[in-house]
This record gives sequence, structure tokens and C-alpha cells, in this order.
Amino acid sequence: MAGLEKRIAQGRGDEVADLVLRGGRVLDVVTGELIAGDVAICGDTIVGIGADYDGAEIVNVSGLTLVPGFIDTHLHIESSLITPFEFDRCVTPRGVTTCICDPHEIANVLGVPGIEYFLEAATRTVLDIRVNLSSCVPSTEMETAGARIEAADLAPLMAHPKVIGLAEFMNYPGVIHRDPAAMAKLALFEGRHIDGHAPLLSGKDLNAYVAAGIRTEHEATTAAEAREKLQKGMRVLIREGSVSKDLDALLPLLTPLTSAYMCLCTDDRNPLDIGEHGHLDYMIRHAIAEGVDPVAIYRAASLSAAEAFGLKDRGQIAPGKRADIVALGSLEGCDARAVWAGGVRVGEAAFAARSEIPPIGRGSVKAPAIVAAHFRTASNRDQTDVIGILPGKIITEHLHEEIPVQDGDKRPDIARDLIKIAVIERHGKNGNVATGFVHGFELKRGAIASTVCHDHHNIAVVGADYDDMALAANRLAEIEGGFVVTEGGKVLAELALPVAGLMSLLTFEEVRDRLVALRDAAKSLGVMLEEPFLQLAFLALPVIPMLKITDRGLVDVAKFEIIG
Amino acid sequence: MAGLEKRIAQGRGDEVADLVLRGGRVLDVVTGELIAGDVAICGDTIVGIGADYDGAEIVNVSGLTLVPGFIDTHLHIESSLITPFEFDRCVTPRGVTTCICDPHEIANVLGVPGIEYFLEAATRTVLDIRVNLSSCVPSTEMETAGARIEAADLAPLMAHPKVIGLAEFMNYPGVIHRDPAAMAKLALFEGRHIDGHAPLLSGKDLNAYVAAGIRTEHEATTAAEAREKLQKGMRVLIREGSVSKDLDALLPLLTPLTSAYMCLCTDDRNPLDIGEHGHLDYMIRHAIAEGVDPVAIYRAASLSAAEAFGLKDRGQIAPGKRADIVALGSLEGCDARAVWAGGVRVGEAAFAARSEIPPIGRGSVKAPAIVAAHFRTASNRDQTDVIGILPGKIITEHLHEEIPVQDGDKRPDIARDLIKIAVIERHGKNGNVATGFVHGFELKRGAIASTVCHDHHNIAVVGADYDDMALAANRLAEIEGGFVVTEGGKVLAELALPVAGLMSLLTFEEVRDRLVALRDAAKSLGVMLEEPFLQLAFLALPVIPMLKITDRGLVDVAKFEIIG
Repeated sequence: MAGLEKRIAQGRGDEVADLVLRGGRVLDVVTGELIAGDVAICGDTIVGIGADYDGAEIVNVSGLTLVPGFIDTHLHIESSLITPFEFDRCVTPRGVTTCICDPHEIANVLGVPGIEYFLEAATRTVLDIRVNLSSCVPSTEMETAGARIEAADLAPLMAHPKVIGLAEFMNYPGVIHRDPAAMAKLALFEGRHIDGHAPLLSGKDLNAYVAAGIRTEHEATTAAEAREKLQKGMRVLIREGSVSKDLDALLPLLTPLTSAYMCLCTDDRNPLDIGEHGHLDYMIRHAIAEGVDPVAIYRAASLSAAEAFGLKDRGQIAPGKRADIVALGSLEGCDARAVWAGGVRVGEAAFAARSEIPPIGRGSVKAPAIVAAHFRTASNRDQTDVIGILPGKIITEHLHEEIPVQDGDKRPDIARDLIKIAVIERHGKNGNVATGFVHGFELKRGAIASTVCHDHHNIAVVGADYDDMALAANRLAEIEGGFVVTEGGKVLAELALPVAGLMSLLTFEEVRDRLVALRDAAKSLGVMLEEPFLQLAFLALPVIPMLKITDRGLVDVAKFEIIG
Repeated sequence: MAGLEKRIAQGRGDEVADLVLRGGRVLDVVTGELIAGDVAICGDTIVGIGADYDGAEIVNVSGLTLVPGFIDTHLHIESSLITPFEFDRCVTPRGVTTCICDPHEIANVLGVPGIEYFLEAATRTVLDIRVNLSSCVPSTEMETAGARIEAADLAPLMAHPKVIGLAEFMNYPGVIHRDPAAMAKLALFEGRHIDGHAPLLSGKDLNAYVAAGIRTEHEATTAAEAREKLQKGMRVLIREGSVSKDLDALLPLLTPLTSAYMCLCTDDRNPLDIGEHGHLDYMIRHAIAEGVDPVAIYRAASLSAAEAFGLKDRGQIAPGKRADIVALGSLEGCDARAVWAGGVRVGEAAFAARSEIPPIGRGSVKAPAIVAAHFRTASNRDQTDVIGILPGKIITEHLHEEIPVQDGDKRPDIARDLIKIAVIERHGKNGNVATGFVHGFELKRGAIASTVCHDHHNIAVVGADYDDMALAANRLAEIEGGFVVTEGGKVLAELALPVAGLMSLLTFEEVRDRLVALRDAAKSLGVMLEEPFLQLAFLALPVIPMLKITDRGLVDVAKFEIIG
């Protein structure tokens, strides 16, 4: 009550506003106009625009353009490889004031306690972290994850104030074929927000998927796919991750007419990429450079996102809205000079004032000791299913190559760029080791291994040499997970990710430096992919077409079958 | 659960759809494209578009264009002068499948039981009636209403499934000056939808009003006023009532860029107007004729409205949405050839299948017996405040005229179009009679009286002759309220409104005919106003500037003061 009266009194100018931003222009994402005048803020809420105000604190934003704080509508914070508190430090200064995360990666390792860690962290960050509850843990029945989450496990979490709804429903075959566990989750969240994940789904299959009550989707990789999803009632979240880059393909669809129904997201983006290119700020800058109407892209980054997820308290610099404000040098540059999140000036003082909670999930890598022989592939036929990498995409090709069996093993063939891949179960459940071949890595020597390995987060390792592969896998157990590059019996570079084998204890700046070293090390082995570790991580994700590998074997995603 | 699985199965075509609309084109209000193919419906929900389906029932809509059902975002059904069940019959065939009503008129007469009547009726109509709970009963402290509703009275109603939020907060001075009763209501609905009513409010006053959490508004009468409200975070509901007609003024603002944030409403529209011009269908037709982008106006009529009020289950012809569909001969004509509301074909069969509840509020007119002398106006000065009618507007002018006192009375002056107006308390509370003068009626003889008299719904009577005024007022008590036209000691025409003095027991067609007769009778007295009864009714509404009259006297709305 007192808060309400205070907001009204400050909005009317009967009382001095807590904070006034003076001298800037406000971009109105509804009418597209630039509005002169002060912005008055009471606590965490904007209470006035377009007028003169007195303020207890007055900040000069002369010459700057004020836009609403950016909303990342779908991401896995774990993919930033840093804790939620470091992620906060990393992206909030770039103007991201809300992110809607799915703690899906940690949930696959730790189960409900992983989700609870994010919910608790979300109450303590400068950034407003909202959580969609992980819907598909494990993503399929074709992998060994560290945990399994059913509808009954999610029900007690639904009332948490940071919870929006149900996160990306990746098990789209389970939806359209009415799998009972999928139905139970959808029924539990009926009427609340249910986020989608349905790459390439179209026609009647897409109709069925949307009819299940799924409202948002971020897997469209072409304008045609996105257009069909929009027309079928979904809000399209344009994704620009570190591997999956859909921005250029979808930009033609983002117009003044459609912009209220399109949003931005990063899904999986690491500090290297954020440091070199940016986060949502990069998407906005790039879109404007490509000719998109600035109002359309700023709207997509703010108001459209707020509306899509029912966050009626934000998305526009207007009275009654959360004081999420980005002061830019220019709309085209999307260069945040100052950021306020819920009325708090973003900066080291705000970050220092947070009461952080300790990370969880230490010692989570419980893989068997690995030797070179684990990577041998016995077979009685030469014809071999091979995963074909498409650089910058998480979709793969399903290739068929002749690989002769020699001494009871199919060996890597560097000349043809056919190297060995293995996934090793590391949750202490069964010690599975599955092997296969991958084309497109251009790795000529040594090995690369990772415990970031979607979504089960077992150990994925690729290599030209079995001993180096074993060394890399075993090293991961020693450092509680992470990334390792090995060659000639030596570790060339590594990054420990001791928080569930997914997140570092370092700052984002330190992680960025390690990633540079790791990328250089990978390059020294011949790997020319821009994101070798993320590309590797997604080779294990059996909900993305076409051919993938888990600890249980190669998965033909089109058929949803383990084929060997 | 079974429903969910059935929808998915029918959407995928694994089971035969309950209903298929074949041969039409769907207007997608998101991308603006026309989509060929069947529309498949399961129960009350659309499950497929843009594909071929088998249906248990197949309806041929060849050559027709299918648009989402229209949503009237703010209206008082009582202003249609018919019961909710008749209103259903009247507007649903025109394509209105959802209306968001404020049972404010009946609440002013009967209190909470009046709201409960609408909530119960809402569960039984073909149309989906949603209710915003009346926020300001009485509208001010300057009138005698039949009831008073405080925050504590509203609280028990909030959980009703038909309730959206709090209805138009007309007491805008109470908001911006932090009146405790207003604060209590706003606090109660914090986080839920709060609808606004703030004519001409601007600058810091508007900032304060919006900062109170008020999200929608329908009183803007110029594009400049509407633009400011949009820019301050409100959704603008373009109104075209029987008296207040804002469509033409606001159309320039309705563009592809803004259309997601603008909606349509009728507020107060009677069956005569609906019969002669139409309802939302008229607004759409007229807007397109005036050059508005058809996608923008159809979007405003559907998806924008659904989003503004959090009705995520409708607003687009897409899977998972409520099967609210209008089949049109043409977009330009907005001529509904067939309508489905929640999958039910609108027509006499559907109306006959409703289980109606009996009307309430009989015998509600408890006015004192009136004699000619009641209308005398004693005064000791000639200068007189006069209400100046602006035809087609509910805003009035505050005029100042010299009217000489003769025999202790100020008499009507027909030559100068200064006729007598009186408001007579009729709820059995105090028998107040207040008199004043009005300019602009052009009434030359006789009298016109009404129990529709915003918002307190006392008896309002205007006349050139005191005897005819007394006859008209007394006749209203006999017929349980309504409209009466008298001349020379005779009743020329009348319409009884026995349901709370507001609604007829007749069909809308019969009411329409009576209104024609009433208008003709008024015309025979010299009245040239298109809507004399509605124009009269709004002369008593003290929340609309500038000069109004209640049973307690003339109200200077700018000062919120009774001036005599």
C-alpha cells in the first residue's frame, strides 16, 4: 500500500522521485517515437516520463537514448560455463536485465536440487532471472542422465515466484505421439506458459504440437519455418547462440507488423562469444546493420518478450513498469553506457552487494577409468554410419562411409576426416562407453574431451589417437569435469568446470581467456571449427536431427532409434 | 488429460476431427497472410490449420475468409438495454465471440448481487462473457447510488473463473490524490488487470495514474491523447459507442506498428445503433473504408485484445486457440456469414440450448411522487450555470447564461434552447430532486425522462413543460423504469426497463422498434440529437467533464465540486 501511494505521489511530482534520469530521449517501442523529458523512478519502478521531475538522485544521460532492458527469452545459463552470479556480471552491463532460463543442463546432472540452486540464485542476482522448469530430463530414453524428472517432481516447484512455466518441450515425438509422461507434464502446466522445441516440425505434426498448448519456440532455422510457427500461434524466439546462429536467416521476417510476436534468445552462448561479439546487444546491432527497423528489433528485445511470457510489469519505459533501462550512445551501436535493472544501477557495487550462495554439484564426474582399448570399434561390415558436422549448426548430417575393419577395429582415417567419437557415462550409473565416427572436425592429431555434452552431460571425446582420448577422458575426472585438449600424451589446454561438470569457479574474464587457449590448442590439432567444444557437446543431443551419439550408441533422430 | 490427448490426436490427423471448416482462407493476424487449407476443431479448440483433415462434421466455407472472433474489450451490457442473454443473441451473429464487460450499471442499482447476476449469466451464454469487477460504485461521492461497493465487497468475487480484474477506474482524482478507498481497491488487484478511465488526463497526472498499475484505457477522444496513453504503457481501447464515437479520431494511430497495442470497444451501444450500423463489425468495416490496413484492424479486434487482457487462449486462428471463428464474405465488408464461438455454431439452436437464469432487480424504481413544483428553480441571481451538450460526445461544456428569475423560478427559454433538467433520486434513499438547465437538446415541448442515468441511475428528466416532466417521471415509477416521452399530458412513447430500471424483458428486435418510436417521438418535440436518451443519460455522469448534474446538484467536474 505504502509502495503504491509512493509511486503515485512521485509520478505526480507531489514527492521528489528517488531517481531521475535527465537529458536523454526515450525510445517508445510501441509508437516508435523518441520522447524527450526526464524519467522518474520510485524504487524499482518507473513512475514518470516526458516531464520535468525533481529527484533525490539525478543522473545526467544527456545525448543518450534510453531503451527498455533486454530480455533473453530462452537460455541455459550453464552454457555460459559460469555460475549465475558470474553470468549476471557478464551480461547485465550489456543491457540484459531479464533472462528466462531453463536450468536443464544442471538438472540432467543433479536433478531437482540443480533447479533449486538456480531458483535460489535467481532471488539474489542484479539481473532478474526467471526460470522455466526443465521438461525433459533426460531428453530421451536413449541416454543415461544423472537424474530423471517427472511431473510429480516439478509440481512442488511451480509456486516459486521465479517460475514462469515449463521449459522447452524437447521430446516433441513424445508430445505428438501422446507419451504418458509427456502428457502428465503438459497437463500439469495447462494454462501456464509452456515453451517449445520442435526443429523442422511442420504441417500436421506441428499443428498437434501447438495444440498441446505450447506457445513459444526457438528452433526455427529458416524464415519459412519461423513463418509457419508464427502462423500457428507460436511466438518465435530468434536464436543466436555460439553454435546455433539463426539471426540472419530469420531477420527478413522481423518487420513492424510481426515484431510484437518475435523475441530474441541466445540458448547457448559462451563468454568467448559474448566477449568477442556480444550478447543480445550483438543481435540488435547486427539486425539494424542488416536493415531491420530499429523499433522492431528493440521491441523484440523487450516488450514482445515480456508479453510472450506474461511479464506484464516490463518491456517499455513507461510508468508502472520495472525500471529496466539501458542508456545507449546510439540505437545503431546498441552500446550500453549505463544500465539500470529494477532501478539499481548496474556495476561492481551492485554485484558486490549480492549475497551469493555457494555452488553445488562438486565431484560429479564419476566415470570409469578409461584405456585406449575402450575406443576400439568392432564390426563385421565396412559400411559405417558417420555423423556429419555442419559448422555453426547443431543439426548434423547422417553420412554413410566405407571404413574397413582392421585387426578387429575400425580406425580413424585422418585423410578422409573420419575421426573417432566416444561418449562415456559419467554419473556413476553404468559406465557405458559408446563409439562412432564423425566427419567435419578436421582434427588431425590428439584428442578433445568435454563433460558439457548435451543434455546428459556424460563425457564426449573425439580424437585421432586412442591414448590421447583416454588421457583426455581421465583428466576430466581429475578436474571434476570441463574441457581438455590432449596430444602426444600431454594436456595442451584445459578448463575445469567443477560445478556439476558444467560451470567454472572462475570469473567470466578468466573463463574467456581459457577458452581462447583451448581454441588455439584445438586449432593446433587441425580443428578449424569456430566453436569446437560446443560443436562437440551437441553431437550427443538426440533430440536434434539427424545422427547423434549418446552413451548408449548412435541415435538416428529421424527414427528416434539407437542404431548401433 | 483425455482432452489434451484428443486435441493432439485430432491435430495430427490420427483421429477424425470433430469439426472441419473446408474451402476458406484464414487471415493470419500475425503475419498478415491468407492461409489456405482446412481448419480442424476438437471440441472448443482449434487443432489444425493449413492442411487437409477428415471431420466428423464438415462445413463448406468455400470463398469465405476466416478471421478470429472479435473481442469487445470494454462495455456495459446494460447499455444495450437488454439482458445478457438477449445481448448474446444480438451481437454474436456479428462475430463478437468474447466481451469484457463491467456490470457497473446494475452494480450501482443493486450492488454485489447485480455483479453476481452477470457472473452467473456469463457461464451460460454462447458468447464468452468475461467480467471486470466494478471499481467505482458509486462513481463519486457527489451522487446517491443504489449501492456502495468497497474493496472488501470485491475480494470474494475475484476467484470467479469469469473475472479478469478490476473495471475502469473512473475515480481518477481518487487515484492520483491517493484516496484511501481507491488505494485499497488498487492494492487488492495489484498484479491483476486493472482497467482505466481517465478522459483528458495528461502529463504527470497521467504518469501517476498509470504508475498505479492501470493498464488499459478507452476514454481517449483524440489521436494525441491516445498516443500519450500508448507511450505511457497503456493499451488503448478505441471506442465507438452510441454517444461516444472516437473511431475516426483515433484511426490515424492504428498502423501495423501500433496495432498490437490497440483494441476495440463499444462501452455503451444500444440495439438501435447495433441494428442500423453494427457492433465491432461496423468499426472494422468503417476503419477499412477509411484506409486502415485490414490486418491492423482485424488484429486490434482479436489478438491485441486477447493479449491486453491476458486471454492467451484466443485471438488467432491457430492450433491450441479457442475455436472463435468468423467466416466473412469479404474482409472489407466484415459481413459474418457464419460464426463459431468456442466451437459452437452460432445460431438459434445454440441460443435455445442455453439454460437462462431469471432477471433480477424488479421493482427497483422507488422515487417520490413528483409534481410540477419540483422543477422550479429558485435563485437570487440571473447568472446561471448551463450544461452545454456536444452532440455525439459525453463530454459537455460548462456554459454561463443569464436567466431571469420570474415568480421565484427560472423558467425554460425555448427560444434560446435553455430547457430544464432534473435528477430525481429513485433508490428509496432520500428522494433528492436537483434541477438545472441544459443547452443543445432543441426540445421545444413536452419532456423526456429515463432511469438510465449514469452511473447512479436515478431518474433524469428534461423538459420544456413542468407537468409533462412530472408525468414522465411518475410514469417511470409505474413501468419499473425505462424511457418515456410525454407531451400535453400524454405519453407519446415509452420503453419499460424492469430489470433494475436498466434492461428490458423484450427481445433486442422489439427493443430496437421501441427505440425507433421513442426517437421519433423525441423528434416530434424538436429534438434533433441522434441519441437523445443516451445523451440525457450521460448528463448525470460526474466523472466526465465539464458540467454535469446528479440528484445532489450541478457538478463542476474540473473541480470535482457540487456547485448548486
